[in-house]
Amino acid sequence: MPSTQDPSPPDLDPIISLLTTYNELNPSLVDEFIESPSALEFMRYVARNRPFVVRGGARDWEATRTWNVETLKRLLEGQSVNVAVTPKGNADSPTLNEEGELLFVKPHEEQQPFDEFVDYVSNQERSGDKTGEVRYAQTQNDNLRNEYSTLFSHVDQDIPWARIALEQNPEAINLWIGNSRSVTALHKDNYENIYVQIIGAKHFLLLPPLFYACVAEAELPAATYVRDEKAGLVMKEDGGGEKVPFATWDPDGGVEGSGTRYSRLAEPVRVTLEKGDMLYLPALWSVSFFPK
Amino acid sequence: MPSTQDPSPPDLDPIISLLTTYNELNPSLVDEFIESPSALEFMRYVARNRPFVVRGGARDWEATRTWNVETLKRLLEGQSVNVAVTPKGNADSPTLNEEGELLFVKPHEEQQPFDEFVDYVSNQERSGDKTGEVRYAQTQNDNLRNEYSTLFSHVDQDIPWARIALEQNPEAINLWIGNSRSVTALHKDNYENIYVQIIGAKHFLLLPPLFYACVAEAELPAATYVRDEKAGLVMKEDGGGEKVPFATWDPDGGVEGSGTRYSRLAEPVRVTLEKGDMLYLPALWSVSFFPK
Repeated sequence: MPSTQDPSPPDLDPIISLLTTYNELNPSLVDEFIESPSALEFMRYVARNRPFVVRGGARDWEATRTWNVETLKRLLEGQSVNVAVTPKGNADSPTLNEEGELLFVKPHEEQQPFDEFVDYVSNQERSGDKTGEVRYAQTQNDNLRNEYSTLFSHVDQDIPWARIALEQNPEAINLWIGNSRSVTALHKDNYENIYVQIIGAKHFLLLPPLFYACVAEAELPAATYVRDEKAGLVMKEDGGGEKVPFATWDPDGGVEGSGTRYSRLAEPVRVTLEKGDMLYLPALWSVSFFPK
Repeated sequence: MPSTQDPSPPDLDPIISLLTTYNELNPSLVDEFIESPSALEFMRYVARNRPFVVRGGARDWEATRTWNVETLKRLLEGQSVNVAVTPKGNADSPTLNEEGELLFVKPHEEQQPFDEFVDYVSNQERSGDKTGEVRYAQTQNDNLRNEYSTLFSHVDQDIPWARIALEQNPEAINLWIGNSRSVTALHKDNYENIYVQIIGAKHFLLLPPLFYACVAEAELPAATYVRDEKAGLVMKEDGGGEKVPFATWDPDGGVEGSGTRYSRLAEPVRVTLEKGDMLYLPALWSVSFFPK
């Protein structure tokens, strides 16, 4: 982990030199395709470990064409779904507790009838409510082929350029539903992601793997929100002393960590996915996103 | 540069852990194609930064079908070529001087009539001479499109899978001619290479870029062999104090450096190219080779 007490003067620090050179050689923007790439074009990005966007890549999916609150409620009538509940949208995020200690806090999870969940999410958005609890369907357990399997036939069964190039099918296909208070904190996955925007739009902030030195990863005590009848959602530290390694730096200047001596060198890539767009993100890139 | 005085105990040393994990995940052998790969298949190797061999990939080249000492002498009749001359085949190699100091020694270079050069090389091979000076045509200045341009039409103008995948043509195409005493010491290039064996066979030893920690790179004073009328080829240190960063570890146990505390973890990939075979080697892999 990078130390803020590193004794090397900046002009001799090899990490500063490395990050500065990376910035000089790589634009802090994302390439855009206006039609699906070939498998070979895709592999060129895999080889260089760079993300790209396909504008309108999922424009013709049945999901993109037909989903809205009403159609989803009809399709999922009578079903209940897993919902992540937090006081301010901070599911799986570094959060200060009342003692000023930074914890990695997981949401309270509960099953809710889908129609109640989606009405809550859309009514909160429409009303501009900035204080009520935030509900976010965000499981990552291949939910579109399980919990939401009745919707699965509405997305293309395949993203051919990825399947042909990588010679494998997706390990998990997840559907996330939230509103503008549903934030996903800066984190990294050790696998590749393809994000597809079906409804609305979302802002992404991306950092290349090399900029690990900027994100101030720390071993945070794990905690979970619990519903308390009187106090509402209360953060409770998990037993067993489990620690979660997680980025504590917020490139947009949140209240958490203040970063490392390298954070000022980060030039985050920002991109907005509109309805029907796709984003390929290589493994180990750091990413945060929030709805537009 | 890795230090042999690193104080971390082996079980806590992250470099040992990294190299051991790499060895567990990657076989120390090279994949083999028996026909040319597609551009997409090639890009899969580029993306994983792994080498491969195409057996017989240049089998049908006019060069492979027709070149031998006699045809080459006829094609290059009356021409003279650049020849690297060393006492024991150690062109561009770490070599101990008489004071026991390790220098990076460049060959004596001279122009020789091609027929004299190639007769010397083949006669030395046939006679089993192990003591006479070693002559090696090994310029790397795109010589097949310059010095040897009369031979250029005998090789395919293009390696389609590489051109299509990388969207560029080779920056340099070099022809090397030597015998079994012409050794190329462990080194790395900051660009990709495709080696094509036209006559004879050659043993390659390859180390992934991660194993930089094993090669004991050192800043060696630069020297050059000079022909002295009485003493023969004499190593002369270059003026100006120029230093060359170069691997000093010989994985096959030469007399030079003894490696680093990490060298024992290296599992070099060994592969032999026979007549008509090709080897793709990604940038920054360390490589040494010598004729079979």
